[in-house]
Amino acid sequence: MAVYTEVTDDALNAFLAHYDLGRVLSFKGIAEGVENSNFLLHMEAGFFILTLYERRVKEGDLPFFIGLMEHLAQRGVVCPQPVPARNGEALGRLAGRCAAIVTFLDGLWLRRPLARHCGQVGEALARMHQAGADFAPRRPNALSIGGWPALFEIAGPRADEVMPGLAEEVAAELGKLRGVWPSELPSGVIHADLFPDNVFFLGDRLSGLIDFYFACDDFFAYDLGICLNAWCFEPDGGFDVGKGAAMIEGYQRVRRLASKEVEALPILARGSALRFLLTRLVDWLNVPEGALVAPKNPLEYLNRMRFHQNVGSARDYGWSA
Amino acid sequence: MAVYTEVTDDALNAFLAHYDLGRVLSFKGIAEGVENSNFLLHMEAGFFILTLYERRVKEGDLPFFIGLMEHLAQRGVVCPQPVPARNGEALGRLAGRCAAIVTFLDGLWLRRPLARHCGQVGEALARMHQAGADFAPRRPNALSIGGWPALFEIAGPRADEVMPGLAEEVAAELGKLRGVWPSELPSGVIHADLFPDNVFFLGDRLSGLIDFYFACDDFFAYDLGICLNAWCFEPDGGFDVGKGAAMIEGYQRVRRLASKEVEALPILARGSALRFLLTRLVDWLNVPEGALVAPKNPLEYLNRMRFHQNVGSARDYGWSA
Repeated sequence: MAVYTEVTDDALNAFLAHYDLGRVLSFKGIAEGVENSNFLLHMEAGFFILTLYERRVKEGDLPFFIGLMEHLAQRGVVCPQPVPARNGEALGRLAGRCAAIVTFLDGLWLRRPLARHCGQVGEALARMHQAGADFAPRRPNALSIGGWPALFEIAGPRADEVMPGLAEEVAAELGKLRGVWPSELPSGVIHADLFPDNVFFLGDRLSGLIDFYFACDDFFAYDLGICLNAWCFEPDGGFDVGKGAAMIEGYQRVRRLASKEVEALPILARGSALRFLLTRLVDWLNVPEGALVAPKNPLEYLNRMRFHQNVGSARDYGWSA
Repeated sequence: MAVYTEVTDDALNAFLAHYDLGRVLSFKGIAEGVENSNFLLHMEAGFFILTLYERRVKEGDLPFFIGLMEHLAQRGVVCPQPVPARNGEALGRLAGRCAAIVTFLDGLWLRRPLARHCGQVGEALARMHQAGADFAPRRPNALSIGGWPALFEIAGPRADEVMPGLAEEVAAELGKLRGVWPSELPSGVIHADLFPDNVFFLGDRLSGLIDFYFACDDFFAYDLGICLNAWCFEPDGGFDVGKGAAMIEGYQRVRRLASKEVEALPILARGSALRFLLTRLVDWLNVPEGALVAPKNPLEYLNRMRFHQNVGSARDYGWSA
């Protein structure tokens, strides 16, 4: 949740004057989304979301994200649609930030997803992977194995403040994964952050995906590993193999995993636990001035990483041939 | 801005099952309102606001606030309308809190109001005073002169942490005001918190009032004093007499001030500056665990209080006979 930037009346009106959406009727900060400032925008033309892109989103990456949302929506993936200004551009500037208006997407994110929801998430993830196959722009994943040492350089020296011995444990894991990380797996555009708060449901039906601001090129199965981490652990820390099975089955209903993807899944899930452990650690140790969001506990992902270390094969996630 | 309470899927669905509003389509925390948790609620029947009442709002007072909004709306004051559940009750329980659904009110609050806006605020304030004349329930103002000593008891001992000498200055002001506070002035239901973020505009026209959770019985002119404080000071601390004149004229277009109200205005404005100084001081010194809202600087109101101390008569606020 976040509204980091104050928008003055004059600035808002000047910005909206570039759009064909009629008069502004309401403008309210939304307490969701960690990275950017989001506002509910009611215009005569309807309800929209106005996003101001903050710190972690690089300006140069925005055309990739905006283009991807347009591309996916054209191929039936329900996601927010960028609304172009009269000059045809979906990206503008407001209050010193890059800003975009996207369509308002109905749906609720689930605070307590069940196995049947995980199945639909797996399916939607696979559909997104397929729909992105002919998306031409490229964006390397800065938060995959190549980017972790840089994160560890920032967070490592103070990691033991969070838990004694953490720095050593992370360093060892980095070294271990470097030796076993796969190099040749089916890949393409992945969501890379498909947590429950980024998936909307209407009743029990998945209704749309949001927040493509970590999307990038990487292994499809790595995206599945992220989702196993994000959806299939219980509040008490245990892995729910029923949810994992539902998710993997859902995924395979749309896109069959190759045997080397199945084989690599434990390492990929393990790496994705390390990825969130590292970014959360950086955030935990560097809460920005005036932040309205409590940073998330990094140790949740330490526990998940340890779980994956003990996984023998994809069967432990619920995969079956 | 605030979302203090997490609402689970099951709890939300159970709560909404009591209403005739169709299926829930969207549910988002809103980053506005300091006292309560507010959510944008899109139902098949339309857009609404769901409020969970937090700490400072007493449960026993809620029927007063809900009843007042209904009463005022019936008399043409545009404000959110409580939506009753099927059992006829507008107040329910959700996530351990009292909760109510109110209609979604279009309009934007002005970050930088101008004199012409202040005129409309004065007018709307007077209309609210008139519309509330036949509202029967009573609610004494716990945050008027009788309640300030209790606030000072909480904040006084640590006031000098905020500014050396502050405790002494506030104590002296409390004593001074006790001696000169008026006792017989036209009174009735007042808003008591009509700050810019509680007044909506569509374009340049005032479109509605929100947040009646400080409403109570007190002098009408005290409410005007609060508005002079809330609307007519510039960011640099100076009082804008053009705004004051517009506000008082606007008020008098609807309801003429009696001469003793005009006479008492400087003391009432001074008292209202002290009231916000005291409550902000209490908040400043007691930021609750997990608060998502930065407390407002109390010293802003010290400067306003000092300004009022040097006011000779209501003419200094822009009043003219």
